[in-house]
Amino acid sequence: MRYEESIVEGRNPVIEAFRSGKTVDKLFVLDGCQDGPIRTILREAKKRDTIVHFVSKERLDQLSQTKHHQGVIAVCAAYAYAQVEDILQAARDKGEDPFIILLDGIEDPHNLGAILRTANLAGAHGIIIPKNRAVGLTPTVAKVSAGAINYTPVARVTNLASAIDSLKKEGLWFACADMDGQLMYRQNLKGPIGLVIGNEGSGVSRLVKEKCDFTISVPMKGDIDSLNASVAAGVLAYEIVRQRLG
Amino acid sequence: MRYEESIVEGRNPVIEAFRSGKTVDKLFVLDGCQDGPIRTILREAKKRDTIVHFVSKERLDQLSQTKHHQGVIAVCAAYAYAQVEDILQAARDKGEDPFIILLDGIEDPHNLGAILRTANLAGAHGIIIPKNRAVGLTPTVAKVSAGAINYTPVARVTNLASAIDSLKKEGLWFACADMDGQLMYRQNLKGPIGLVIGNEGSGVSRLVKEKCDFTISVPMKGDIDSLNASVAAGVLAYEIVRQRLG
Repeated sequence: MRYEESIVEGRNPVIEAFRSGKTVDKLFVLDGCQDGPIRTILREAKKRDTIVHFVSKERLDQLSQTKHHQGVIAVCAAYAYAQVEDILQAARDKGEDPFIILLDGIEDPHNLGAILRTANLAGAHGIIIPKNRAVGLTPTVAKVSAGAINYTPVARVTNLASAIDSLKKEGLWFACADMDGQLMYRQNLKGPIGLVIGNEGSGVSRLVKEKCDFTISVPMKGDIDSLNASVAAGVLAYEIVRQRLG
Repeated sequence: MRYEESIVEGRNPVIEAFRSGKTVDKLFVLDGCQDGPIRTILREAKKRDTIVHFVSKERLDQLSQTKHHQGVIAVCAAYAYAQVEDILQAARDKGEDPFIILLDGIEDPHNLGAILRTANLAGAHGIIIPKNRAVGLTPTVAKVSAGAINYTPVARVTNLASAIDSLKKEGLWFACADMDGQLMYRQNLKGPIGLVIGNEGSGVSRLVKEKCDFTISVPMKGDIDSLNASVAAGVLAYEIVRQRLG
């Protein structure tokens, strides 16, 4: 079994890593730092017998990958990818229709992190990303996700189009985000659903789009071409939330 | 009159800068680069008699502020701030009820850029930001805005609470984004409206919140605390769009 370490940086992400039950191998804290959040982190570390190192700012800067460590860095077991089956099981466990967000080539870690936050809060059961030409679960994604990475499973597949085929057999319908698509209010988005969001520049690829059952778009009144990918994902995901609530 | 230059980097932002009628003082293009988008840019430059310099990658890297110049950098007259009155006038010109997004201390240029895109496409007439403790119209904001900065006016005020008082006299109602607020679907968001979004970490400040007429929140089903600020702004702005369409 391959062992990997991942770095979690910043106060809230480290607190979340502890609270979500993540294995924190080592904790590095800025020497002399003892405000509220740091004391909370040290209490959590004590509860779990985590090794704590009090170090200089220089040492933290050196360890830091995001350059926003806020005086605390935790070394954790690496972020593990889930299986698609885990995501379906999560939906079954909650007695809900599956709601999965599929990202066809998101490259910016800030977008993936923000979409993880959205998926978590919108009640999506997981995210599916492709192995190639897409950002994975990096420390920046973890930090931007504000803890969501610890709760919302992310599966990585070789071929997104094949994954869609398999999930159709499980009863899911696929909605492709598309600027020229049907206005989102006019589509029925209740029931088991996969929401497909495309690459920041080029949108959803042709092969994946052809696998989808229908397209959806947000109303656009302005002068420019498109929303930021994570904002578009948020607006579309929340239309699903709204229809499910209604 | 003070003269400032601003740098616009990357293919789409430079094309947008030309098309929106911005004054491009100088254009720097990677020597030997002549694919489609670059040829489009050169055509635009020729139409306007813009001075074009063909330079090395090293020179572009040196000029670049975002490190994502994609082979082209334009030097423009600086992004100008609008007056609040300009935003109201834009609404009057369109014969629409004013829809303004007020940002109480957004610090991340990626968030401000993404919110500008959202404001443009959601049909908001402008954005108001405070002078202090907030990011302004920087080159990174311009780039992330994907051209929206050229269309959607941004006014900068000394005191957001006073600006709200003045706008109330113009008939606007103010909705404060607040995680513990009233569910957004249950508020009437039609009519002249100001949507107030808070700082990434601390939300809307107490003084500004007290000036607002009501609070609104997005439904949250998950484990973490909050959406990314630009995603929250997007979801709330599009609830206003939905209600106005309905």
